[in-house]
Amino acid sequence: MSLRDASIVSLMATIYNFSAGPATLPTSVMARAQADFIDHHGLCYGIVEASHRSPEFGAIIQRAETNIRNLTGIGDEFAVLFLQGGASTQFAMVPMNFLAPGCTAAYVDSGSWSTKAIKEANNLGSTTTVASSKASNYDRIPAFEAADIDTATPYLHITSNNTIFGTQYQTVPDVPAGVPLVADMSSDILSRRLPFDAFDLIYAGAQKNLGPSGVTVIIIRRELAERGASSLPSMLDYRTHIKAESRYNTPPTFAIYMLMLVTNWILDQGGVDAVEQVNRQKAAALYACIDADDFYRGTAEPGSRSIMNVCYRLPTEAKEADFGTVAKAAGFVGLKGHRSAGGIRASIYNAMPLSGVTALVDFMNDYRQRQG
Amino acid sequence: MSLRDASIVSLMATIYNFSAGPATLPTSVMARAQADFIDHHGLCYGIVEASHRSPEFGAIIQRAETNIRNLTGIGDEFAVLFLQGGASTQFAMVPMNFLAPGCTAAYVDSGSWSTKAIKEANNLGSTTTVASSKASNYDRIPAFEAADIDTATPYLHITSNNTIFGTQYQTVPDVPAGVPLVADMSSDILSRRLPFDAFDLIYAGAQKNLGPSGVTVIIIRRELAERGASSLPSMLDYRTHIKAESRYNTPPTFAIYMLMLVTNWILDQGGVDAVEQVNRQKAAALYACIDADDFYRGTAEPGSRSIMNVCYRLPTEAKEADFGTVAKAAGFVGLKGHRSAGGIRASIYNAMPLSGVTALVDFMNDYRQRQG
Repeated sequence: MSLRDASIVSLMATIYNFSAGPATLPTSVMARAQADFIDHHGLCYGIVEASHRSPEFGAIIQRAETNIRNLTGIGDEFAVLFLQGGASTQFAMVPMNFLAPGCTAAYVDSGSWSTKAIKEANNLGSTTTVASSKASNYDRIPAFEAADIDTATPYLHITSNNTIFGTQYQTVPDVPAGVPLVADMSSDILSRRLPFDAFDLIYAGAQKNLGPSGVTVIIIRRELAERGASSLPSMLDYRTHIKAESRYNTPPTFAIYMLMLVTNWILDQGGVDAVEQVNRQKAAALYACIDADDFYRGTAEPGSRSIMNVCYRLPTEAKEADFGTVAKAAGFVGLKGHRSAGGIRASIYNAMPLSGVTALVDFMNDYRQRQG
Repeated sequence: MSLRDASIVSLMATIYNFSAGPATLPTSVMARAQADFIDHHGLCYGIVEASHRSPEFGAIIQRAETNIRNLTGIGDEFAVLFLQGGASTQFAMVPMNFLAPGCTAAYVDSGSWSTKAIKEANNLGSTTTVASSKASNYDRIPAFEAADIDTATPYLHITSNNTIFGTQYQTVPDVPAGVPLVADMSSDILSRRLPFDAFDLIYAGAQKNLGPSGVTVIIIRRELAERGASSLPSMLDYRTHIKAESRYNTPPTFAIYMLMLVTNWILDQGGVDAVEQVNRQKAAALYACIDADDFYRGTAEPGSRSIMNVCYRLPTEAKEADFGTVAKAAGFVGLKGHRSAGGIRASIYNAMPLSGVTALVDFMNDYRQRQG
């Protein structure tokens, strides 16, 4: 019983939501969640009303975990957790667990979120920044050599995609053997094929590629979790959640349900490789439009460009404001750049269809022509 | 466009969900959330897809806060926050903020959740348990004298309602002037009139009386927050969230939206006093049924009985198992007692209608008669 059937859709204006997150979700997922909202598969009440200990929710969280395992290809040496608090909580939880007194954790500073992660770690212990692109206003992923990282480093932390500046690691960086690699993948998890088992700890707020806000996915090597500090608050100890299979306390059940539906959808699309192919098409179309002449100007170095967040400027700030207004009237919302970066940002996560990007490119070309 | 109109409802079996939380939500709230799920008031997309910085979500979180202020009557000397992590995170966050080295916080041990709060605090500092009902298996709220509490105590912590054992403070306990009173109100917030400004910090997971899981309501006296420890992780410092008005990072937007709808509904019922009246009727009907003879046996001392969680036993565990099976078949779900307490538990939060309790009482009387 979907309300997003043809007759309803025809009554709705076509709106493309390019928000950086919370972001657009797959149409079929939204329709399914709506249809089942008050009566989950014959329960006669909604999953949002079901106990987190119920068999119905148990099947959902198990399916969500299985989906993530299938999509990433990780083995049982990793635990998959669904926590609360967002990446911002992970900024503290990682050093609380793994940055012992007397040790120095290594961070790469590739933008605002990296900077926040470093600040939280510095509050709890010692860090070193092995590379930074701050001097060029974070227009690229800064390079570093594995040889420059002390092999005694408790972990190296990277931000795989920088939402605000539109940059993204093109490959997994080399780290010395034995140094755990920790990645904030909040804005590009499951959007492209990576050797996920090259990481020891991945965390990601779900609200960009995986579902609504309110749930954070953790993929952690069990052996790393076991090395966590002792006497941590229970909720800030990865071992607590591994042992309780993410149900130490009441988890955010509806957000996990939505994540389950979204990961089902990714599998239905053909998995990570299939969505990556579409994501690359979408990004290529936008960057081609930007690069066609000097009217639009991409802010990220071409070698560091993100396929998730396409950031660009127009000739003047006044023109950018006008572009935003005209775009919104045409049905393209959420295009304003982050307040710290300015300009325009099109966030094109997994659930943004190619048709949305094609429509935006047509609009951008039209807008450019009308300036002549 | 509500799917819970008469024709649909008539197709659904009558199910009453007595889960301890996540719990049943008001029918009209569920219908509204479903109707607006894919198109929030003409946005052409769902609120679950909207940016937490959007004006649409801004209006929702502001309304949620205003509703809580109107329902509690607190003044601007209190901040209202919507955080993640549940009460279990608060168990650590309270002592991290307010239990300085060399000080001893006071706790009342009235059940499993109190015990967990004490354990987390002991992990971070020193506590004293000023009263406990452990010796009588938490069948009552233990008494204590304000005079027994050191006036230098950084705070006194209570659990206002004990979900597992079905006990509840009947009044706000006296504390010495100057000792902040902290309450875990997860299972009875906004279910009855209390002098909310007698507390300095109230926290409550939403999933019983206020909405779905995934959001924790905090009501904190601003002056107390200012006295928090320095150098806390940002996410664990109340001042961070007060300053950012609960949007330091991406909040659980859909859970807050649902909480806004549920608090609208409480206001529509006539506010806290009106729902309290119904809650007392529901509890009185159940306790009267239990007290009618010795077949059902309430586990809480009459003077400590909860109006939220009614816990009782049957003559044997085998009979309890049978009762659960027969009740479920008759449409009464979620009645199993917590695994640590056994027996039967009917959770009758705000959203459980009187008709649900009346039906359960009829069923219980019928079940008892059939034993004869």
